[in-house]
Amino acid sequence: MNDTGIEIPLAGNWFTEVCDAHGTAFSLRITERLTEVKTAWQRIEIFNTTDFGKLMVIDGCVMLSSRDNFIYHEMMAHPALFIHEQPQNILIVGGGDCGTLREVLRHASVETAVQVEIDEQVTRLAEQYFPELCESNNDARASLQFKDALQWVKNADAESLDVIIVDSTDPIDPAEGLFSELFYRDCWQALRPGGIIVQQSESPILHMNILREMHHAMATAGYTAVKTLQFPQPVYPSGWWSATLARKGEMFTGYRQKEATEKPFETHYYNAEIHTASFAMPSFFLKELST
Amino acid sequence: MNDTGIEIPLAGNWFTEVCDAHGTAFSLRITERLTEVKTAWQRIEIFNTTDFGKLMVIDGCVMLSSRDNFIYHEMMAHPALFIHEQPQNILIVGGGDCGTLREVLRHASVETAVQVEIDEQVTRLAEQYFPELCESNNDARASLQFKDALQWVKNADAESLDVIIVDSTDPIDPAEGLFSELFYRDCWQALRPGGIIVQQSESPILHMNILREMHHAMATAGYTAVKTLQFPQPVYPSGWWSATLARKGEMFTGYRQKEATEKPFETHYYNAEIHTASFAMPSFFLKELST
Repeated sequence: MNDTGIEIPLAGNWFTEVCDAHGTAFSLRITERLTEVKTAWQRIEIFNTTDFGKLMVIDGCVMLSSRDNFIYHEMMAHPALFIHEQPQNILIVGGGDCGTLREVLRHASVETAVQVEIDEQVTRLAEQYFPELCESNNDARASLQFKDALQWVKNADAESLDVIIVDSTDPIDPAEGLFSELFYRDCWQALRPGGIIVQQSESPILHMNILREMHHAMATAGYTAVKTLQFPQPVYPSGWWSATLARKGEMFTGYRQKEATEKPFETHYYNAEIHTASFAMPSFFLKELST
Repeated sequence: MNDTGIEIPLAGNWFTEVCDAHGTAFSLRITERLTEVKTAWQRIEIFNTTDFGKLMVIDGCVMLSSRDNFIYHEMMAHPALFIHEQPQNILIVGGGDCGTLREVLRHASVETAVQVEIDEQVTRLAEQYFPELCESNNDARASLQFKDALQWVKNADAESLDVIIVDSTDPIDPAEGLFSELFYRDCWQALRPGGIIVQQSESPILHMNILREMHHAMATAGYTAVKTLQFPQPVYPSGWWSATLARKGEMFTGYRQKEATEKPFETHYYNAEIHTASFAMPSFFLKELST
């Protein structure tokens, strides 16, 4: 049994995340639990695994492992930043492990990258257990703020941001408000024309209801175009994940392909071919969104 | 503990496949085990799951679920068949659940589709528990043979086949020989010029050693071009899978895009955009194959 009384397939040296609503579970073999911190918002655990490096878990859900977080972080940052003509002012909502921030700061055009994470402990634990993700935290362009991002965006100057990256937990407390039309409207106000919001949008095979609602809410909030990309993410439910982008006042008509091809920094998943490919969506996805 | 003495994270109503070499496990919640059959080659089990329909397991490894097998079967069949200019004579090696055969027979150009599966019980159980996958088994173009495919291919007429689809289990007994240079040479002999072999090639993030060896063995066996495509497969280790294609006497320079776009049959994952996209591979994959 876990905290919520759900029977879990766990024995011995395994951490298991049960996806009760979908009858699946994913396990990583662990050698030890390094720490457990209860904060005002959530319970954060760090484990050592035998094959995936360190593992961060929040309220029983896998957040990231050392081994495969590169896919998620690169795909949350680079597609949006290579679509925007000149991304200068970036907001990261959540993202406390700082992996997305690190990818954002690889872009020379970026002048400011503000990260607004509600729970400072996520960042403090990332600094300790995932130092490689935090290597750009002292970049002069970065600002780490530990606040409620809903309020931060509501109070942001109109047309002051180029890209907003919503790198949050699943759409339940405390992240539920980040999946609402109201929040998307506040983001729309804060974005300059041509600005892009990109948000992690769960698994195409498990969470089509969330994806449909997100597309609807973003369109209703005033964005001109909404588009979803897909990528593998082995440690998340179903191993298959997505991010959804919406743009203010412009369609998605391409990206800075030459710059993406000749980018002066290394990536492990993202490249120019992957950029284009990630926007190709399965037939069932297209069909379900069109109904 | 499972049969091999490996500690597994299993309790109660879950079927769990442990990927011991990589420290991961995947579980599906089950309501009952419908049958267990021990054959000369392997142990086959069928379960009812709460959310993924029926589940077939061979020697403790997930083969397919009702819910997500469409991705694998479509991606094993349609990319190769839409690359070939006029696929008429097809061989399926393994593929006993008949899902790949069903997809192959959707192509009007196909005149013969021979399926050579070593274990007849796989097909008999598929007919019983996955009848939707077997709906084309009585197609006049189909021939189901229960034999050793290694011998079958060795004895095949030279230049008698257009596409060979190797839809086998992992590269251990009884499928180990299907991942060898010798087998690829026999396939090369049996293929017409322009012919294509396509083989399931495991997980890009877990099995780069197998992928590297397969590329090397196919190139050494005489194929002119070798190319890997990727797709999600939630019930397989890491949720991320691949297929590798090799072509006799021709490069991979495109596909019948118009026919793929206007195909007269329905697919749930594959479409023309996915076709192109699936061949875009991550930076780490390209780097590891180039060394």
